[in-house]
Amino acid sequence: MVTTRPVSLGDLDLICRHREEMFRASNAPGRSDEVLSAMTRSFRVWIEPRLRDGSYFGYIAEEDGAVVAGIGLMIIDWPPHPSHPNEDKRGYVLNVFVEPSRRKRGLATMLMRLGEAEITRRGVSFAILHATRMGRPLYEQTGWTQTVEMSKQLK
Amino acid sequence: MVTTRPVSLGDLDLICRHREEMFRASNAPGRSDEVLSAMTRSFRVWIEPRLRDGSYFGYIAEEDGAVVAGIGLMIIDWPPHPSHPNEDKRGYVLNVFVEPSRRKRGLATMLMRLGEAEITRRGVSFAILHATRMGRPLYEQTGWTQTVEMSKQLK
Repeated sequence: MVTTRPVSLGDLDLICRHREEMFRASNAPGRSDEVLSAMTRSFRVWIEPRLRDGSYFGYIAEEDGAVVAGIGLMIIDWPPHPSHPNEDKRGYVLNVFVEPSRRKRGLATMLMRLGEAEITRRGVSFAILHATRMGRPLYEQTGWTQTVEMSKQLK
Repeated sequence: MVTTRPVSLGDLDLICRHREEMFRASNAPGRSDEVLSAMTRSFRVWIEPRLRDGSYFGYIAEEDGAVVAGIGLMIIDWPPHPSHPNEDKRGYVLNVFVEPSRRKRGLATMLMRLGEAEITRRGVSFAILHATRMGRPLYEQTGWTQTVEMSKQLK
């Protein structure tokens, strides 16, 4: 039986591991162990106060007493935009991770449903995420579409 | 002769007009005059304190005493990521607009060069933007690439 609970400060190491594993599994270029380790060290410092004050929130799924999946959520400040003309916030979904042995059973979809409902409950109607190659089909099936975001490494 | 200067609080209405015209020219679906007017009203309220405190910055290009183009910039809080493992910030470029009669003369490229340099000067090495159909080729020519961002209208 799978149960879910909100993330708490005690999940700090777990969330860092989920984020690192998520990026490692994506097999995207430029994601060496060295880069991922540096990212996780910085991310740990970044997320700790945000777990404390609740500006980073989300859910953990457990089965038979073991953590099997997780999702992170934030409400980010954003300029009012044609997709949300009367709101200056966007929901952001991040660190979606399912243990490899528990994949293809709908856990990510279940966590996404919880996450989307929580963003809506907080009065925010538009959300974004960045999809790994693995996550993309799942998001497409539930109404997420590609945006026109571009990026550049400046130095 | 084209000159550039930093944006100031006195450019509030101008920036709002640039943003609205930029979205109108993009011809993307869901951008009726009604939606754009609502967006601009909210955006005006949103940007005013940010122009005051400098968290929204950027440049205006002028030629013969008339404004011909503009660019907006922000440094946004972002979780450390494999593309910027030791930084918890991203540069954000927005509201890039060139008056229709002054297009195809390199004004946007000039403003982007200024903007990228200013983001770098502030110690931030990775930047994002959202490209309109019109802007996209220009950004591609200067090293910007598509990201994996996805979005969803939740209600």
